[in-house]
Amino acid sequence: MSTVTTVIDGKAAAASVIEAVTSAATTLESSGHRKPGLAVVIVGDDPASHAYVGAKSRMAKQCGFNSIQHTLPEETSQEDLMALVAALNADPDIDGILVQLPLPKHLDSEPVIQSILPEKDVDGLHILNAGKLATGDLKTGLISCTPAGAMILVRQIHGKDLSGLNALVIGRSNLFGKPMAQLLLNANATVTIGHSRSRDLPELARQADILVAAVGRAEMVKADWLKPGATVIDVGINRVAAPEKGEGKFKLVGDVAFAECKPIAKAISPVPGGVGPMTIAMLMANTVIAAHRRAGVAAPSF
Amino acid sequence: MSTVTTVIDGKAAAASVIEAVTSAATTLESSGHRKPGLAVVIVGDDPASHAYVGAKSRMAKQCGFNSIQHTLPEETSQEDLMALVAALNADPDIDGILVQLPLPKHLDSEPVIQSILPEKDVDGLHILNAGKLATGDLKTGLISCTPAGAMILVRQIHGKDLSGLNALVIGRSNLFGKPMAQLLLNANATVTIGHSRSRDLPELARQADILVAAVGRAEMVKADWLKPGATVIDVGINRVAAPEKGEGKFKLVGDVAFAECKPIAKAISPVPGGVGPMTIAMLMANTVIAAHRRAGVAAPSF
Repeated sequence: MSTVTTVIDGKAAAASVIEAVTSAATTLESSGHRKPGLAVVIVGDDPASHAYVGAKSRMAKQCGFNSIQHTLPEETSQEDLMALVAALNADPDIDGILVQLPLPKHLDSEPVIQSILPEKDVDGLHILNAGKLATGDLKTGLISCTPAGAMILVRQIHGKDLSGLNALVIGRSNLFGKPMAQLLLNANATVTIGHSRSRDLPELARQADILVAAVGRAEMVKADWLKPGATVIDVGINRVAAPEKGEGKFKLVGDVAFAECKPIAKAISPVPGGVGPMTIAMLMANTVIAAHRRAGVAAPSF
Repeated sequence: MSTVTTVIDGKAAAASVIEAVTSAATTLESSGHRKPGLAVVIVGDDPASHAYVGAKSRMAKQCGFNSIQHTLPEETSQEDLMALVAALNADPDIDGILVQLPLPKHLDSEPVIQSILPEKDVDGLHILNAGKLATGDLKTGLISCTPAGAMILVRQIHGKDLSGLNALVIGRSNLFGKPMAQLLLNANATVTIGHSRSRDLPELARQADILVAAVGRAEMVKADWLKPGATVIDVGINRVAAPEKGEGKFKLVGDVAFAECKPIAKAISPVPGGVGPMTIAMLMANTVIAAHRRAGVAAPSF
């Protein structure tokens, strides 16, 4: 392509969401309501999970939220975890509840997640929220954070109406692929969902004006998969060996071979710094939305 | 194509579902449980709605169900209709509740449908049932009848696993297009959802091994839209003038130009006699499933 490719700046987009969230939280509080309250629950000692939870708690404070972290021991029983969620459901100061996944192996995450009140389900994982999204109700539920964030990046490039554009989502998880497809469809894209059982992903990809990859396979999408001028959203985060950084060193790469795809694309999101920062920003957005609804005040949209 | 095209016999497929439903209802009753109970609610005097409801009530009786029809006057209030649904929700003899749509214009159907207990929502229209289907849970919810019936026809041709097959669903309604896409995806097809805002439906169609049309435009899908050897499922029911039958006469046609498409397809469902008869059969299937779950007995699958 002779034109210059846009490298989508997820950090800047996330910062802009956080700014809007902070402003909405301030306005809510200054109009006589309490601060938005986010409860983050973590069970066990997994260092990666603790790092994620720490980042979420810090971001919540930065947004002006009341952020409460519940750290439970590894040996916590299903009953005790469910009892904590029930208490947080009943707590009038809590607008959002996030249970950090994965849980230790002896715990069953699905009943825990489904026991969160749908209106406090800021991760957007409750079946009722999935049902609202699946039936095109984007106004009263809470939408899974990563697809909601990826959509904001798509909108930066194409605007709100994707009529006439072909979108391919590679990956069909409940966390990302399915809700992403529903959001794209709702924006009038013609949506294809490809996955591990698809016959010819490269051929499907070559027809996509918008290609969203979420499979967890390092640099799977190659330059010859792309339609020239496509928008490429890379949701993969893969840890691969980086001997150039020294023995035993690793780096993060996406599902898209960025260097070779960039010259073909119209716009492309990098890893890291693309979709990644949007996830936590949308968690804050969901929390401030939930707080507004709870306060009976019109919620901002993102 | 040199091979002979299969014209999919929806009447026979529906009869086979009805036979299995009747047998399951008999077994349930003979093991000491009560008959499955289906309540059908109709408001007003629309002749077409009364014809549908009559057919459903008769079929329920034929299946050995306890079938109760509630016929409410045109001027019924929202409150009275909601009160009837609440009473049917609480009635231990009722397994399934169907509110015939459309309702008279002064009534709001959505709160009525969403007030039906999800486990009695045999039309599969409750958000919780949509959410279960959207997240791949096909075991604990109730699935919208027409897509569930269309899937049985697809399975007749391709079996349960659609890996490697490209499916195109034309139409994105909550009643049909979206749940159909989810069912096809769940069966491992690579699924595209096309609609009125799609750029080139004929080109999309020519890549589909399974083409499902549900747009409500008479004979829109032409022979040159088809990939040779495709399976074509026609969900449209359109009333068009049939001067050959006499002045002012009408006939029913689908969204597919059947006569010209038949020689190209591997299998094709006719209108009438294709998907149509499956809808009412799947309503009976959902009712017998709901009755089994209520009785705490393993439910049959269809």
